[in-house]
Amino acid sequence: MSLSTAPELSVSRWFNVDGEPPTLASLRGKVVVLHAFQMLCPGCVTGGLPQAKRIATLFPDSDVAVIGIHTVFEHHDAMTDVSLAAFIHEYRLKFPIAVDQSGDNGPIPRTMAAYGMQGTPTLILIDRQGRVRRHAFGAEDDMRLGAEIAMLVVEPVK
Amino acid sequence: MSLSTAPELSVSRWFNVDGEPPTLASLRGKVVVLHAFQMLCPGCVTGGLPQAKRIATLFPDSDVAVIGIHTVFEHHDAMTDVSLAAFIHEYRLKFPIAVDQSGDNGPIPRTMAAYGMQGTPTLILIDRQGRVRRHAFGAEDDMRLGAEIAMLVVEPVK
Amino acid sequence: MSLSTAPELSVSRWFNVDGEPPTLASLRGKVVVLHAFQMLCPGCVTGGLPQAKRIATLFPDSDVAVIGIHTVFEHHDAMTDVSLAAFIHEYRLKFPIAVDQSGDNGPIPRTMAAYGMQGTPTLILIDRQGRVRRHAFGAEDDMRLGAEIAMLVVEPVK
Amino acid sequence: MSLSTAPELSVSRWFNVDGEPPTLASLRGKVVVLHAFQMLCPGCVTGGLPQAKRIATLFPDSDVAVIGIHTVFEHHDAMTDVSLAAFIHEYRLKFPIAVDQSGDNGPIPRTMAAYGMQGTPTLILIDRQGRVRRHAFGAEDDMRLGAEIAMLVVEPVK
Repeated sequence: MSLSTAPELSVSRWFNVDGEPPTLASLRGKVVVLHAFQMLCPGCVTGGLPQAKRIATLFPDSDVAVIGIHTVFEHHDAMTDVSLAAFIHEYRLKFPIAVDQSGDNGPIPRTMAAYGMQGTPTLILIDRQGRVRRHAFGAEDDMRLGAEIAMLVVEPVK
Repeated sequence: MSLSTAPELSVSRWFNVDGEPPTLASLRGKVVVLHAFQMLCPGCVTGGLPQAKRIATLFPDSDVAVIGIHTVFEHHDAMTDVSLAAFIHEYRLKFPIAVDQSGDNGPIPRTMAAYGMQGTPTLILIDRQGRVRRHAFGAEDDMRLGAEIAMLVVEPVK
Repeated sequence: MSLSTAPELSVSRWFNVDGEPPTLASLRGKVVVLHAFQMLCPGCVTGGLPQAKRIATLFPDSDVAVIGIHTVFEHHDAMTDVSLAAFIHEYRLKFPIAVDQSGDNGPIPRTMAAYGMQGTPTLILIDRQGRVRRHAFGAEDDMRLGAEIAMLVVEPVK
Repeated sequence: MSLSTAPELSVSRWFNVDGEPPTLASLRGKVVVLHAFQMLCPGCVTGGLPQAKRIATLFPDSDVAVIGIHTVFEHHDAMTDVSLAAFIHEYRLKFPIAVDQSGDNGPIPRTMAAYGMQGTPTLILIDRQGRVRRHAFGAEDDMRLGAEIAMLVVEPVK
């Protein structure tokens, strides 16, 4: 089986980024944990985002890049950039967060569509060669996730 | 000690109300649990609001009225009525929720000011005669709260 | 409906009692929370006993007496008084704990049989007149229990 | 730095073992998770043992061997093999559990002494070459532990 290269992110705005915003291409060599959320999604607020924070705390930046992406596909007027900025502040999210770019047709934003995400929270693990290795919709177990990320970190790049 | 009558609510808009909106005066004879929150306050989302839902489920409507009040005192642009409507939908809040009316001077809305609330979440227990009997800022213990509300329910009205 | 008087406890040994051991008769005028457990019952250790501790902490001794009763109906050799003493010490249980007296026939001890308990944990609420008002097998909700105990505390004795 | 070889276990009795009991020597090639506990230690019952079960569920037997060891250093009369057998049954522990052999002098059993354990719960990670790689007393984070075990699983044996 050949693994697919993760589609590049389509971003209308970044939060928590100083200087040049990251791209998946620029992160080659690191494991990327892409956490797709909506600020008014209860499963994201109580489960996915705290887990993303734990990942960012546990693994060093030099090995693992945690990227949040705000993939709004419903209640668009309720989850604007102004609201998201306050949300990021109040929930003390420190990792880079991208706003997924609106789609041309319909409510699904572009990165969400490119990855074929079914909803939020979605977790995507991208290996050091830029390939999607895991795509998970819904709640994930901490121990399993810790093991999976660690194995991607130590995996040799061919 | 004479107990003070709870100040009437200043409301710019109601959610989850069909027909005539409630007033504290119209609720005399019932215990009122007033839960003040902001939709982007983590302690409200993970603690206070789920607890308010449990109160509304446990005690019959005929004895206890649970009222939420959205007392926005920071990030006003981020917590508009449009955003609140989506929040109420996503978090499946079913009890009546009032939007606290903007203050004339400064960021503190009127009901919040009238009660001297220090922040969110704040829980106010109002007895069957309309008097404030408890004012609590922050996390509250379920068992203690169950006991306090029950005692107000069975307390004779003099 | 006439309520039944709670059967007196059959006790082979008390822990956490100085002086005269309590009887239900001697506790008339207080609400009694009788918590039946086995030291090797997971639902008791993680749920029932911590809840009994919270009850004992919340309600004053003058209103509510929390009594534990070790109703061993299986693995009798594994849950002797020696083991129970260490268990009480390690789990920092401070309320009075009775060892239920062995039955004449079969594994069910006497108090357990007299109350018709189905297993552990079982919670029995006894009102100030000594009558059983609630008999619950399994996990109980904190808020509901707080409300029920409070109502028994303030209920007039006829 | 040269890593020390993990001392062999001193065992007076095994539970959950059919046929030949395991030794650390016989487990070379696998990662061994050694979980030292006492059946009346609250931190073991509510934290350590459920975590050991999660490890045993997550990682395949062919990669990771989870071994419990009952290192009784206090209340010896309260935690006999009879009591432990019932405990293992009630808590549905399925992985092999060793009873640590009594020490010649004093209350500390032999394996506990050989490893210099400070108390329970203690977690020891042993790599595929039989060397101690982690020695942790107290609560451990699931994600971190998942990552550490995974890295030992994929580490090349030199």
